[in-house]
Amino acid sequence: MQIGRIVGTVVATRKDERLTGHKLMITQMVDVSGNIQGHPIIAVDTVGAGIGELVLFTKGTSARFAANKPESPIDAAIIGIIDNIDVYEEFLVNKGD
Amino acid sequence: MQIGRIVGTVVATRKDERLTGHKLMITQMVDVSGNIQGHPIIAVDTVGAGIGELVLFTKGTSARFAANKPESPIDAAIIGIIDNIDVYEEFLVNKGD
Amino acid sequence: MQIGRIVGTVVATRKDERLTGHKLMITQMVDVSGNIQGHPIIAVDTVGAGIGELVLFTKGTSARFAANKPESPIDAAIIGIIDNIDVYEEFLVNKGD
Amino acid sequence: MQIGRIVGTVVATRKDERLTGHKLMITQMVDVSGNIQGHPIIAVDTVGAGIGELVLFTKGTSARFAANKPESPIDAAIIGIIDNIDVYEEFLVNKGD
Amino acid sequence: MQIGRIVGTVVATRKDERLTGHKLMITQMVDVSGNIQGHPIIAVDTVGAGIGELVLFTKGTSARFAANKPESPIDAAIIGIIDNIDVYEEFLVNKGD
Repeated sequence: MQIGRIVGTVVATRKDERLTGHKLMITQMVDVSGNIQGHPIIAVDTVGAGIGELVLFTKGTSARFAANKPESPIDAAIIGIIDNIDVYEEFLVNKGD
Repeated sequence: MQIGRIVGTVVATRKDERLTGHKLMITQMVDVSGNIQGHPIIAVDTVGAGIGELVLFTKGTSARFAANKPESPIDAAIIGIIDNIDVYEEFLVNKGD
Repeated sequence: MQIGRIVGTVVATRKDERLTGHKLMITQMVDVSGNIQGHPIIAVDTVGAGIGELVLFTKGTSARFAANKPESPIDAAIIGIIDNIDVYEEFLVNKGD
Repeated sequence: MQIGRIVGTVVATRKDERLTGHKLMITQMVDVSGNIQGHPIIAVDTVGAGIGELVLFTKGTSARFAANKPESPIDAAIIGIIDNIDVYEEFLVNKGD
Repeated sequence: MQIGRIVGTVVATRKDERLTGHKLMITQMVDVSGNIQGHPIIAVDTVGAGIGELVLFTKGTSARFAANKPESPIDAAIIGIIDNIDVYEEFLVNKGD
């Protein structure tokens, strides 16, 4: 799974009918410092997450299980709302030569 | 899923027969500002999308379900035409140190 | 799927027996301008493609279906020979701020 | 699989119920020199790993098998605690022209 | 599949029992010139490959089939020892504008 921040929503009237009823959240992956990384993921919400929240999201076949639609076109889903992130800074130091 | 823009089409006469009947759309991922990112994806169209449109696309096993061909060589599919993208800019600011 | 150019072949005498009978093509992803991107993919050929040709290739479970070997170690396959690529340049312009 | 270092934990009270009972470890991929690479992965622990340890982790469907929950939303799991890494430096030299 | 060079091994005493009996090889992807790319992959060996050898490796569900353990946590496997790589340099030239 990855840590993401919900930054918006997408509306699509014409779409695969198996997406109906799912809110489509624009989710940006964040690193342990809260910085946004990479490209936007459009994830279906399965936990009642809101705009601006830090969430846990999953991709691929796992997302279809999250949405309880194993044979749907879903490939990303929000599966948790993050209350707290504990990072031990000493392990973020590189040990390389 | 990801946000993409359809920028063209690909024609292949000699191909896996399970691709027959599917339009092959050159789709470029875009970020929340509409900028193109990454490499082109060739996705089958399942919603009647046209050149230049902003679409929702899915990859992997999800794409085979989208095309209703679970045992085909398809690994990317367009599953929605995007009407509107709402982005809350305040959540795109980095929180890092 | 992705657009690729076949740039060579790989020979492996000692290999998983389920690869026997498949030509192993070194395939480089190309963008819409024909420029090579990323790392080489070793894909099994399912359409009789030749060195130098522009092809359509698929990855993951889709590749095993392409090769009609759903329980094999194959994770990339060439599934079409590209005759023509139509790109509408006006949609490749970034719309960002 | 990949080599990772556990750098923290994530707490999510509101989450998919199939995640209950799994510790959610913030795992950073490391290279052979011990340097951190890429973005954080949130992996469920299946071997009793602790903060700061070097671990082996797996992604995708493999992670659901690791957790013995093949139909869950899990897409990353820690499956080993690394005792030793043996690297032969002479093979890390590039052979390119 | 991808071309890799085995650069070392990993030892993990405490690990998922389905990994027992598999040698865990540190594998670095290489490009067509023999240059190392990307991060290390820990792959199970299925062909008797040795340190320093150029190999063919596969990822994801394909790796579980390679190891004949379709319900295991394995997500990368070495499936061939490369004898020869033939690259046609003229097709590595970019055709872009």
